[in-house]
Amino acid sequence: MKTLFLAATLCATAQFAFAEDAPITHDSEYYILLSQHGAQWAEDDVAVDARLASFRAQNGGKAPNIVSVLIDDLGFGDMGIPELNAIRGYETPNINDFSDEALRMVRMYTEPSCTPTRVAQMTGRLPVRMGMGDTAVDIAGFGLPGTEVTLAEVLKQAGYATSHVGKWHMGDIAESWAMNQGFDYAQMAVHQQGQLTIFNDDAIKEQVSVAIQDYDDKYTLDAAFRPDASAMMTVIEGEAGGPIREIRMESGERWNAAKYDEMNQAFQDKTMDELARLAQGDKPFFLQYWPMIPLDNTRAGRSGPESANGGLYVDKMQLLDQWLGDLFAQMDALGVADNTIVVVMGDNGHFTKYSPQSGFTPMIFRGGKADTTEGGVRVDAFIRWPGMIEADGLLNSIIHVSDLYTTLSRFAGADQFIPRDRLVDGVDQSAALLFSDESKARRDHVIIYSADKPKAIVKDQLKLKLPPPGENPIVAKFYNLYQDTREEYSVSTEVGAWGGQEFVRILARHKARKQKFPDTPPAFGLPYDGIENIRPETAAAVDAFLVRKASPEQ
Amino acid sequence: MKTLFLAATLCATAQFAFAEDAPITHDSEYYILLSQHGAQWAEDDVAVDARLASFRAQNGGKAPNIVSVLIDDLGFGDMGIPELNAIRGYETPNINDFSDEALRMVRMYTEPSCTPTRVAQMTGRLPVRMGMGDTAVDIAGFGLPGTEVTLAEVLKQAGYATSHVGKWHMGDIAESWAMNQGFDYAQMAVHQQGQLTIFNDDAIKEQVSVAIQDYDDKYTLDAAFRPDASAMMTVIEGEAGGPIREIRMESGERWNAAKYDEMNQAFQDKTMDELARLAQGDKPFFLQYWPMIPLDNTRAGRSGPESANGGLYVDKMQLLDQWLGDLFAQMDALGVADNTIVVVMGDNGHFTKYSPQSGFTPMIFRGGKADTTEGGVRVDAFIRWPGMIEADGLLNSIIHVSDLYTTLSRFAGADQFIPRDRLVDGVDQSAALLFSDESKARRDHVIIYSADKPKAIVKDQLKLKLPPPGENPIVAKFYNLYQDTREEYSVSTEVGAWGGQEFVRILARHKARKQKFPDTPPAFGLPYDGIENIRPETAAAVDAFLVRKASPEQ
Repeated sequence: MKTLFLAATLCATAQFAFAEDAPITHDSEYYILLSQHGAQWAEDDVAVDARLASFRAQNGGKAPNIVSVLIDDLGFGDMGIPELNAIRGYETPNINDFSDEALRMVRMYTEPSCTPTRVAQMTGRLPVRMGMGDTAVDIAGFGLPGTEVTLAEVLKQAGYATSHVGKWHMGDIAESWAMNQGFDYAQMAVHQQGQLTIFNDDAIKEQVSVAIQDYDDKYTLDAAFRPDASAMMTVIEGEAGGPIREIRMESGERWNAAKYDEMNQAFQDKTMDELARLAQGDKPFFLQYWPMIPLDNTRAGRSGPESANGGLYVDKMQLLDQWLGDLFAQMDALGVADNTIVVVMGDNGHFTKYSPQSGFTPMIFRGGKADTTEGGVRVDAFIRWPGMIEADGLLNSIIHVSDLYTTLSRFAGADQFIPRDRLVDGVDQSAALLFSDESKARRDHVIIYSADKPKAIVKDQLKLKLPPPGENPIVAKFYNLYQDTREEYSVSTEVGAWGGQEFVRILARHKARKQKFPDTPPAFGLPYDGIENIRPETAAAVDAFLVRKASPEQ
Repeated sequence: MKTLFLAATLCATAQFAFAEDAPITHDSEYYILLSQHGAQWAEDDVAVDARLASFRAQNGGKAPNIVSVLIDDLGFGDMGIPELNAIRGYETPNINDFSDEALRMVRMYTEPSCTPTRVAQMTGRLPVRMGMGDTAVDIAGFGLPGTEVTLAEVLKQAGYATSHVGKWHMGDIAESWAMNQGFDYAQMAVHQQGQLTIFNDDAIKEQVSVAIQDYDDKYTLDAAFRPDASAMMTVIEGEAGGPIREIRMESGERWNAAKYDEMNQAFQDKTMDELARLAQGDKPFFLQYWPMIPLDNTRAGRSGPESANGGLYVDKMQLLDQWLGDLFAQMDALGVADNTIVVVMGDNGHFTKYSPQSGFTPMIFRGGKADTTEGGVRVDAFIRWPGMIEADGLLNSIIHVSDLYTTLSRFAGADQFIPRDRLVDGVDQSAALLFSDESKARRDHVIIYSADKPKAIVKDQLKLKLPPPGENPIVAKFYNLYQDTREEYSVSTEVGAWGGQEFVRILARHKARKQKFPDTPPAFGLPYDGIENIRPETAAAVDAFLVRKASPEQ
């Protein structure tokens, strides 16, 4: 109790030192670090403010622009290390050049799959806190609640122009969508690539997956068991407060590989256009480009292997590298490279279901997407801010994707708009990033969830795989991540006897904190409600969803 | 037959174009590539000769010096990639800086353990050809035959001063030793680190291994079953043709961790001294420094973890990095950095028996020392030759450690001394290295042996795990190494049906070639014969070895 009291005091002091707001409310472990480092953090905050003020002064009083490129399903080491490109027979020269200008966040932790990672970046909160730890690949009628205050909303309040292009995948109900969550404009895929690359007609022909639509229905009683993926909503577009329209499908049309290519090219083109438009505006801007590629699952008559590797994802990764090269060149041409923070990172580990055909297999860390081993949650992550963040640097501090929410808000001078009425998991890593100094990090742990269950805890280089409920924590599996990146040799000796208990206490504090800040469910609603031009087959698919939902004990 | 005839013709042409000797005799696959690329290779050879001549002209007519640093039991990615240092909590800044000045040979293949790798570098031949694929850790009475023409002997004939310091481990009989195999001077550990770090008295106390010497012999009938590792020969020193003396043990003394430290420091000091001595001489020099560390297996009261990783090998790797930093600095200070070729590489993958305590675990490739998966035979390998070989470059061609024999001989202008009366496996990779051009490589495959059995074949990025004798090759396990670095997903579909047969033909050609150039046994002899100051306990250990050897059906 004494520690917590001290922590709360220090916390108030540290935060009030640089902002006139109430302090941001964090999870319990933060206050333990604060009690040890509060005085230093207060000093660091003064230095951070000075550097940010100096940037603004040189930038005509304007906050920096922010570009977020979040790439699907990449493992650690897929970008930015030429040796690791070479041994796998592909090249990402543009991203590698970018990484030479950026700081590599070596210990960036995401959530183990797309939706929760994106939710964490957007809200600064663990996805479990608002029921968004789970992913649905079909029509589901739930999503990110409108009550969440997204990074876009925080920045918008600070005067930013905001735009989102590409994957969204945080729900199929209107309140969850980018244009309703703080973006002035959005062109976004409602769902993910399952519908668009796995269940599309070309992929079904190539036996990438079981057929979703049943072409021969003579043995079928339940016509809606296999949804028709082409009937699902594809890409929507709209402005905040304006009409929202589906833009990639006409009624009766079937989704296929060619349409997937067209959509991806359009996302790239739109990103380039948005960058040009935003760069000409008066406001600082926040542009999110969340590409759908490298995910792809069928050749479908398109050109053959583009790389020596030849994997479907790897070939598309090379294409994405070209596109990002174009984007970086466009930033140079528009004169915004120097006043724009660019974050390029993966959203979770490899989608191992499609290894090795994808061309990617887990390597340095074990496991991939959906796993809570490091292979699921450790990703390549780079941040570039010329003159402000060390070029070609490495920062080996633990950073969680939710920290980007808090840190980018701080960089933008928008942190006063981070909500004070809820628990925010993302901590402010400004000092560590601006001074390239691991001792200035404000996090030394992550609690790794799979959906709504905590599965593992990392603190420093130690990782505890949580034992099943009721089991004595003394036998929990422990890993030393420095010595054993792949978690293959558990070290359940002395560290188990000490650490099992200590880690259980971390979890207990985390759970105790939930008494005051309980997890809440996601928002529920009518799928696709509010889209002007909903196709008849899409409306029918929604009806089928509603029938199943209404079925007793659904 | 036609192809072979054509190949032989081209071969003669290509080789005669730059040397007045008979061509070097290679294994069968070489002639298949020669038949396709012979004309280009002949052109490349002219360009190589011109570059080498130009170097000599600028170097006062002298050939380049050569320094070989061969490090024990390192996996791919342990040196030279700061990101991979970072995630494992250690630093090798000096080697990383060196790698920025060097070309990384990304696909360097060694043999799967120390002895055969060293034999391949020294002889340019697969160790199986002279019965040296096997390693003995105790007194064994066999070793590298004196009839082998080592790289040192080749270079010496071309006027080089030669010196070897550190690990040797190619036999415990006199004809095998460095000072009898072409080195003017050698200070070398006769055996390997087993005796010195695993079976030493400190390690036995720490339960690193079963006790070798039995301290309580009341249940023991066979007193020689557990050899006394302290009685084995440790470090010997001598000049070519001169007396050879053991220099680290007095009779009655026990080997321990402190002596291991002292020996390693002495190897480092001697290397520095030899470098200074050789640099002052008139001749170009060939200096081999083959350290015993990073291998180490006990703290034994020495200082605690030096790195965040804390592993025993990793801590010693940091020490070795400092030492190599000193060596590189010494080269600068002596003014020989610019006219010296430096090769730094590992000799095989991690010694996984001591994972994770060693601090190293296989990561990018699967398996380690003694395995024929890539983790056993892919290593970090760098070659620096300022102004001649691309700095901070990557060469993704397959290179086998035996190629260093042929290639370094060529660089030294000594290739006419490579013997023409036997099969040489090492091919000349000069053009690929000097022009940093993968298309100029002269090897696209390796046949990976474990002791005297071929276990796997790599060609391009395809790897066949050889099926047991008698099994239909159509079911052999195939791996696409680009897509699957860890050989975890076999792709035995079409590639199996085609490649199984094609790879069996590679092996058949390799075996057919052995009809003309048959494998021969190693040299046998009396262990330690010729060492002036053999200790009484060592002589007794040799006697015990001879009794066992004389036992019927031994």
